[in-house]
Amino acid sequence: MSTPPHPFDNAIALTPDGKSQFKGQPSEDYANMVGPFGGIIAATLLNAALSHTERLGEPVSLTVNFAAPIATAPYTVAARAVRTNRSTQHWIIELCQDDIALVTATAVFAVRRETWSSLEVTPPEARSSAEIEPMRGKGFPVWVKNYDMRFVCGGIFDGTTAGDSKSTVWLRDEPPRPLDFLSLAALSDAFFPRVFVKRQKMAPVGTITMTIYFHVDAALLEKQGTAEILATARAQRFRDGYFDQSAQLWGCDNELLVTTHQLVYYRDE
Amino acid sequence: MSTPPHPFDNAIALTPDGKSQFKGQPSEDYANMVGPFGGIIAATLLNAALSHTERLGEPVSLTVNFAAPIATAPYTVAARAVRTNRSTQHWIIELCQDDIALVTATAVFAVRRETWSSLEVTPPEARSSAEIEPMRGKGFPVWVKNYDMRFVCGGIFDGTTAGDSKSTVWLRDEPPRPLDFLSLAALSDAFFPRVFVKRQKMAPVGTITMTIYFHVDAALLEKQGTAEILATARAQRFRDGYFDQSAQLWGCDNELLVTTHQLVYYRDE
Repeated sequence: MSTPPHPFDNAIALTPDGKSQFKGQPSEDYANMVGPFGGIIAATLLNAALSHTERLGEPVSLTVNFAAPIATAPYTVAARAVRTNRSTQHWIIELCQDDIALVTATAVFAVRRETWSSLEVTPPEARSSAEIEPMRGKGFPVWVKNYDMRFVCGGIFDGTTAGDSKSTVWLRDEPPRPLDFLSLAALSDAFFPRVFVKRQKMAPVGTITMTIYFHVDAALLEKQGTAEILATARAQRFRDGYFDQSAQLWGCDNELLVTTHQLVYYRDE
Repeated sequence: MSTPPHPFDNAIALTPDGKSQFKGQPSEDYANMVGPFGGIIAATLLNAALSHTERLGEPVSLTVNFAAPIATAPYTVAARAVRTNRSTQHWIIELCQDDIALVTATAVFAVRRETWSSLEVTPPEARSSAEIEPMRGKGFPVWVKNYDMRFVCGGIFDGTTAGDSKSTVWLRDEPPRPLDFLSLAALSDAFFPRVFVKRQKMAPVGTITMTIYFHVDAALLEKQGTAEILATARAQRFRDGYFDQSAQLWGCDNELLVTTHQLVYYRDE
């Protein structure tokens, strides 16, 4: 008996359609309030560059811009290697429906070489995940069921905030799936909007742009296996319709896997 | 007698060359070790979208990817409005020499509306700029002379670091120039590489991608005038050839003008 593919792999699946273009479609498993979960789309755009025959090295950065909602219909993803240097490669990636771009992205891939290295930050304080109940509740968007989330602080409407926008949460794919660049891209967006946490109420929101810096290579990721990550996020400023979010994703052995940032649109009610 | 234009405005100047394309050329005033200062190029790409006849609103985010060095020769900048919604607009911008893309960017513009707002961070502690001597020294790249830099901490080879990568510095254009989105974009890159600060020695480096979130509108910027800003930056992780930098630019009255992030390539020697 073979194991059925993980819902994540189904959701980001792409079929080649010419040299630099792929076809795909939104997965019901990762539906959000409007259109698909942004993290699954970020992973899908990254998957186009990762799957391209001209791809060099591994992702070191990814910026995804959400220009318009994606309909429940097939889409194309075009990935263009704008520039390939000796050890770095720059990509422009666009997701279209009916030839209209709804999501754009730029990515940088690189072949890493060992150098002097240093970590300047420490993981957030956190009780062990075994001591925390996974988040349960009704009314969450569909995509949430694909993640095991255990809030250390800054949960959503559960009395665990300190009046600020900070959240720390144990996160992993549900069911467990070995960590790779694709799941890291999706996990980078698996935070509830900071404005919900800060104000402890819902509001109309949407990520308009997110940037992910990958601090790991495939060999280091392989060591993470299916272990949960410790994710922490906060806003710096909410002002007149836009707030920022900065987050860290920590793996086993105090490895800082990812630092990630986004700008999010919000309205008052 | 009319005032001659500021060197900054000369350096980012573009001449329309068709509906969505502009011509420009590197300015000797903003030369870096190899090619122009990245900040002036970020400002130039933003200028293309700002100058476009289809432009809606004001910049809220900008991501610039440095794919290859720019030669001392004319360039073209093409700005394409990928998507215009009711209150937001998404851009892809490319700088080319000989039809080869050397820099790519994505930007989001928006019409802001007043909402509930909140600031979650505080400015770094700093002595007043009047108490600090402007940085002087030989061997700096040409672009540095266009900025007045007064280091509160984390200066370069001056004994003001604490063993980490953090710098706090009073910054303004030299000669003074009223702050706008363009100068903010350049100021977002006006930090010395974190690896120089951390290790207190030079190394081969290059920013490969930077993202700027603008938390202000033109009306608020106008109030800043030519006042200096307080800029603070730090790295989170240096690993195998790449480090990140996160920074805040603070204006008068404790206004957080910009939060900005970049990923930088480095070698050991």
